[in-house]
Amino acid sequence: MEFELSILGSSSAVPTSLRNTTAQVLKAFERFFLIDCGEGTQRQMRIYKIPFERINNIFISHLHGDHCYGLIALISSLGLKNRTSPLHIYAHRKLEKIINCQLDLLNVRLPYEIVFHEIDNTKTEVIYEDKRIYVTAFPLKHRDIPTSGFLFKEKEHLLNLKKDIVEALEIPIAWRPRIARGEDYIDSDGKVYENNILTHTRKHSKSFAFCSDTAFTEKFIDTIKDVDLLYHEATYANDNKDLAKKYYHSTAEQAAIIAKKAGAKKLIMGHFSTRYKKTKMFEDDARAIFKESYAVNDGDKFSF
Amino acid sequence: MEFELSILGSSSAVPTSLRNTTAQVLKAFERFFLIDCGEGTQRQMRIYKIPFERINNIFISHLHGDHCYGLIALISSLGLKNRTSPLHIYAHRKLEKIINCQLDLLNVRLPYEIVFHEIDNTKTEVIYEDKRIYVTAFPLKHRDIPTSGFLFKEKEHLLNLKKDIVEALEIPIAWRPRIARGEDYIDSDGKVYENNILTHTRKHSKSFAFCSDTAFTEKFIDTIKDVDLLYHEATYANDNKDLAKKYYHSTAEQAAIIAKKAGAKKLIMGHFSTRYKKTKMFEDDARAIFKESYAVNDGDKFSF
Repeated sequence: MEFELSILGSSSAVPTSLRNTTAQVLKAFERFFLIDCGEGTQRQMRIYKIPFERINNIFISHLHGDHCYGLIALISSLGLKNRTSPLHIYAHRKLEKIINCQLDLLNVRLPYEIVFHEIDNTKTEVIYEDKRIYVTAFPLKHRDIPTSGFLFKEKEHLLNLKKDIVEALEIPIAWRPRIARGEDYIDSDGKVYENNILTHTRKHSKSFAFCSDTAFTEKFIDTIKDVDLLYHEATYANDNKDLAKKYYHSTAEQAAIIAKKAGAKKLIMGHFSTRYKKTKMFEDDARAIFKESYAVNDGDKFSF
Repeated sequence: MEFELSILGSSSAVPTSLRNTTAQVLKAFERFFLIDCGEGTQRQMRIYKIPFERINNIFISHLHGDHCYGLIALISSLGLKNRTSPLHIYAHRKLEKIINCQLDLLNVRLPYEIVFHEIDNTKTEVIYEDKRIYVTAFPLKHRDIPTSGFLFKEKEHLLNLKKDIVEALEIPIAWRPRIARGEDYIDSDGKVYENNILTHTRKHSKSFAFCSDTAFTEKFIDTIKDVDLLYHEATYANDNKDLAKKYYHSTAEQAAIIAKKAGAKKLIMGHFSTRYKKTKMFEDDARAIFKESYAVNDGDKFSF
């Protein structure tokens, strides 16, 4: 279990007594990534036991309040906790101004630095990378609001060499890391040995994709291909297809079509319109297309 | 029961899993007044069944985040509900800039008007008045942060005339409303009848005072004299007197001294430091001075 996703909010636009607005925490190889930060996210982290002082990187999909109003309070609270390490925030460039105008006017002096990383919401590009994982932002389609989805993907594993063959061919030590990274081997006589006869099948690299908010669009399907866990917004069920279209949101059925076309292993849906008191309808609509579809609740955790 | 106070938050600085940051709603003669608005207040209103679209007047004691971070989300949600009637906010003048910079940068267009009323936090003055109630702001003492407490007071009732005396003296009709308002009666011969022999005792005007955040100060005691319900912050118990002094907050004992000196009928305390898991200690400290002292929890309601 290298990945664990915690759902901190699953309501769209406004909170309800049971659902907060959007925020999720992905724990991946002991790193805690916060994705979106609706109002009240810091309290949800306390309720669901996320060590919020361990969050170093925050990704904001777009600048609608239900995805970012909780940031200023979280930032302030981290200051009260005497944080000193930098906090990295990846978002549309306007977010920096929004945060800074509040910090300035409220005379909040933080004991740590906020490093703002501008996302170009028109591009598919890697915006974060470390030894074990990288994050790709990709454009979503949400009215005229610049919006990005995020793919969190484990880096490719090194290939395990087939010991018996490597020894039989007396492959020099210096060559072995190169073969593990995927190169073919060329011996001193110039003979080429294809990588796949020297190595075992590569271990699967885990991934999670976050797609919210968005109207139905297939444009990012190649980017999230074969994802293990796909979160796709489903603001409406099929009874309100017209509203989904009007407001640039998706239905559960549309989320399932994306999951199926992307070859996802599992689909989770959230960002439910407050008009729905129950979510069975979402699962019914989605499962008619893609069996492994689930409507989330606040506090749900998904490990893989 | 003309007054009902709902506690929406009772934690200081940051929320805990059990307590949100400061916000209270006073329902008085079917008006709903919001006092302070920590992050997540709109959700607390949903949880505790406050009809938040009926709030027309919001009073903000000071511009620390735990007393105002929830405003922008509440304002936005009222817009999503297609509110059209104006929303009045009483606060330090900087709040207008803080709200407007967010609305501007986030391109939020509200379908209603926000009317900002500047509080001069150095003065004791009436800042709101209608037919039944008026609100007086008075200075608190909270470091260099301009901070006001609020007294919500029912307007004085007209005096009931003693029918038999009024008739015996043949007091003219035109004089009677003047006497009901408290004037002495002077008959056509110039003889003066003192008001108190013509009228019954005036019916008590109910009141509620909100005092947070503040270090111990007796300066506002005359303003809140004989208050029915006093909310006074008690960030610390007696075990942390030194911290109360250092951070310009109060202890439970100090809150009780204020309640006693003001002749309050009941004291409720909140804004507890997160270091305290239980509040019995606050009640013990306070009751040694003032018996009717209570530590609040989120969701508590007080009717009077």
